[in-house]
Amino acid sequence: MAVVLTLAMKRSFSLLKCGRWVAHRSPGGNRSVSGGCFEPQPSFGLLFDIDGVLVRGRNPIPAAVDAFRKLVDRSGKVQVPVVFVTNAGNCLRQTKAQELSSLLGVEVSQDQVIVSHSPLRMFRSFHKKCVLVSGQGPVEEIAQNLGFQRVVTIDTLREAFPLLDMVDHSRRPKNLPPVTVNFPTIEAVVLFGEPVRWETSLQLIIDVLLSSGKLGVVPAHLPHPHIPVLACNMDLVWMAEAKMPRFGHGTFLVCLESIYKKVTGQELKYEALIGKPSIITYNYAEYLIKQQGEKRGWTVPIRRLYAIGDNPMADIYGANLYNRYLQMDHQDDIQATVQGSTLMRKTVSEELPELSKDWEASRSSIESCQSILVCTGVYGNQSEVPSDPNESVIKTVFHGHRDFRFDLNLVEASYVVQDVNEAVDLVFQKEDWPQA
Amino acid sequence: MAVVLTLAMKRSFSLLKCGRWVAHRSPGGNRSVSGGCFEPQPSFGLLFDIDGVLVRGRNPIPAAVDAFRKLVDRSGKVQVPVVFVTNAGNCLRQTKAQELSSLLGVEVSQDQVIVSHSPLRMFRSFHKKCVLVSGQGPVEEIAQNLGFQRVVTIDTLREAFPLLDMVDHSRRPKNLPPVTVNFPTIEAVVLFGEPVRWETSLQLIIDVLLSSGKLGVVPAHLPHPHIPVLACNMDLVWMAEAKMPRFGHGTFLVCLESIYKKVTGQELKYEALIGKPSIITYNYAEYLIKQQGEKRGWTVPIRRLYAIGDNPMADIYGANLYNRYLQMDHQDDIQATVQGSTLMRKTVSEELPELSKDWEASRSSIESCQSILVCTGVYGNQSEVPSDPNESVIKTVFHGHRDFRFDLNLVEASYVVQDVNEAVDLVFQKEDWPQA
Repeated sequence: MAVVLTLAMKRSFSLLKCGRWVAHRSPGGNRSVSGGCFEPQPSFGLLFDIDGVLVRGRNPIPAAVDAFRKLVDRSGKVQVPVVFVTNAGNCLRQTKAQELSSLLGVEVSQDQVIVSHSPLRMFRSFHKKCVLVSGQGPVEEIAQNLGFQRVVTIDTLREAFPLLDMVDHSRRPKNLPPVTVNFPTIEAVVLFGEPVRWETSLQLIIDVLLSSGKLGVVPAHLPHPHIPVLACNMDLVWMAEAKMPRFGHGTFLVCLESIYKKVTGQELKYEALIGKPSIITYNYAEYLIKQQGEKRGWTVPIRRLYAIGDNPMADIYGANLYNRYLQMDHQDDIQATVQGSTLMRKTVSEELPELSKDWEASRSSIESCQSILVCTGVYGNQSEVPSDPNESVIKTVFHGHRDFRFDLNLVEASYVVQDVNEAVDLVFQKEDWPQA
Repeated sequence: MAVVLTLAMKRSFSLLKCGRWVAHRSPGGNRSVSGGCFEPQPSFGLLFDIDGVLVRGRNPIPAAVDAFRKLVDRSGKVQVPVVFVTNAGNCLRQTKAQELSSLLGVEVSQDQVIVSHSPLRMFRSFHKKCVLVSGQGPVEEIAQNLGFQRVVTIDTLREAFPLLDMVDHSRRPKNLPPVTVNFPTIEAVVLFGEPVRWETSLQLIIDVLLSSGKLGVVPAHLPHPHIPVLACNMDLVWMAEAKMPRFGHGTFLVCLESIYKKVTGQELKYEALIGKPSIITYNYAEYLIKQQGEKRGWTVPIRRLYAIGDNPMADIYGANLYNRYLQMDHQDDIQATVQGSTLMRKTVSEELPELSKDWEASRSSIESCQSILVCTGVYGNQSEVPSDPNESVIKTVFHGHRDFRFDLNLVEASYVVQDVNEAVDLVFQKEDWPQA
């Protein structure tokens, strides 16, 4: 489905403001007495995407280092609440926090990091089920850290059923292996991030879905519905060092959905889609931002969020969707923007009672979540930015997930800037935040 | 797209004959004098699929050994022309011939083997182009044997452009590698068979298509049309030792087509789709069968072909499509059954002038190509064969390739038998062929 996106954009530092968003000219914080000095207290928080905003591959983007110099005080602590919201999923939060600390030269704790699967710790009804996890890296450890107690990996399945993975000639068993019996029935599939050897994961996940989790048993009929599938990170592409965007987990999901459709004639259904642009991820980010304020003893409530990212379909769409959610009294309209997924119904109302409660309690304090698009990642590299902002209509294609209905308004960033340093300057300017 | 297939079938040896097919009750051969003895000369030839008909994985199906005992004379030579037509593509013909010789206990030469890519030797207009080949095994050697003179593999691309293949974290380059310049422009993509590490091949093939074969250059616009893609073997699944069918190259093609569509909004177009059920493969099989007769000095023309297979969408569909082709005076109607592919126009009329000439010269001798479905592979394992042949309506899903318009009549086998031994018995009975 090809669509036309209209993106208001400008390269220069003077910033474009979309008419839809009300500018908040109120001061960004209050001043309070602490240790005999006045210390500003922020009433806003920052959400940073990582790839294409702070780093490209293994290398920091220079503007990110400049930006974080401004964000920390003399003792090296951030002056405003900051969370790093990445759709990367094949790693532990702790590992990502250490990487960021090293790259940016500031101390980052794991409580400031949301990876795509972080909200799964709230999906308690799945934690006692036997789940097949897909991804790379320490997937078993990730699953256990999130609370899953009965975890089966793709490698475990390969070992138990070596006749199933037949694509790679060199890995086929040389002799007929003994038949595995009494293997536990898999009750749900959790897709953390893009695996390696896609043919293996695709084959085994399809086998699990077709057999209702009972591998080794030939199903008499196509199971309907199939066992639940929870997927984290829908990003079709992401920006590494290469000039053109690279495949992300969303591309793996495209393969899985297409094969399931071809083999069964039915649509693959997700129990939940997690990670940007899902509201649940922004909901969780807000929760962590508020926790930071509480730990620091800040008494001024957080009222505004700024989400800085490079991917219109993940960062901008997600921030705008969350902003819409904040503006509305009812969830129904938000639910309507997510097709085929029970994400919103399941998560906010059922799966996340605690988060939901916290959210309800603090709801009145948050006024908006504004989106800031930078040109150092997926966006600036997929299309030329016109020198004349009036020529800001570009043709592109819907790179969002199948289950997110395309809404033209939600890919339009509140602001477009060159890089993350300019994004921080913009926020400080808007919030009248004093710079060191 | 779910469809309903009607398959006339019966397990027992007494054979069902579909009304559409005229039974040939004429004797299967003439008797000629040779060395003082009468030797029968066949007027029919046999096309055998391999996986699911003769072997399952690495093991011969017992019925296949029995069948080939009947097919050879006392000196071990086959008494009738036989070709093995497989959609396997990641191997040399010679290797496949050696495997079959060993498994079946009869001598098989490479001139009796058609793998999915064999007809590419006739695509001379591509042989001088710089082609990217995808598959596993000795792909470079296969390409060179087919006549391609300028071959680039996926591994060569990875080495020249290490920043492109980023899915597997452990294979990402640790340092920024030097930029490759003056790499040859890739002019076509040839997909032999399913590769390993699908994420790598999918990413690099998409990169090549988006950049018109100029890797390292960021395209200003989506190339239209993209450079030619030739694909061999469309089988979605195949039957190995496992109880459920395994992914074939067709599944890889589903991924490639889906990603291309998602990323570009456009359909991936194939310059040619080769391998069963393409007519070109059956055309080539007939050519080899006639060559065998000539080498043996048989003077009786071949009039009937029997194609034995386990896959309704490849073996049966292909044999029936070829039979329809034989019955028709014009190619137009056949072309209409292949959507989106220029296969027929390109191959028979332009790409294969010699084959086409041979074919035209011998056309009058061939009367029919009948399809015989066995239940030892994909077919018998995907659905129960009802004990009552009148209850022969089963629900299934179209597993053929996207570009082959589903034609209900073409998946209906001329005959359904239990295994290949029964298939050979059937043919001998129909042809009044004397058994040793």
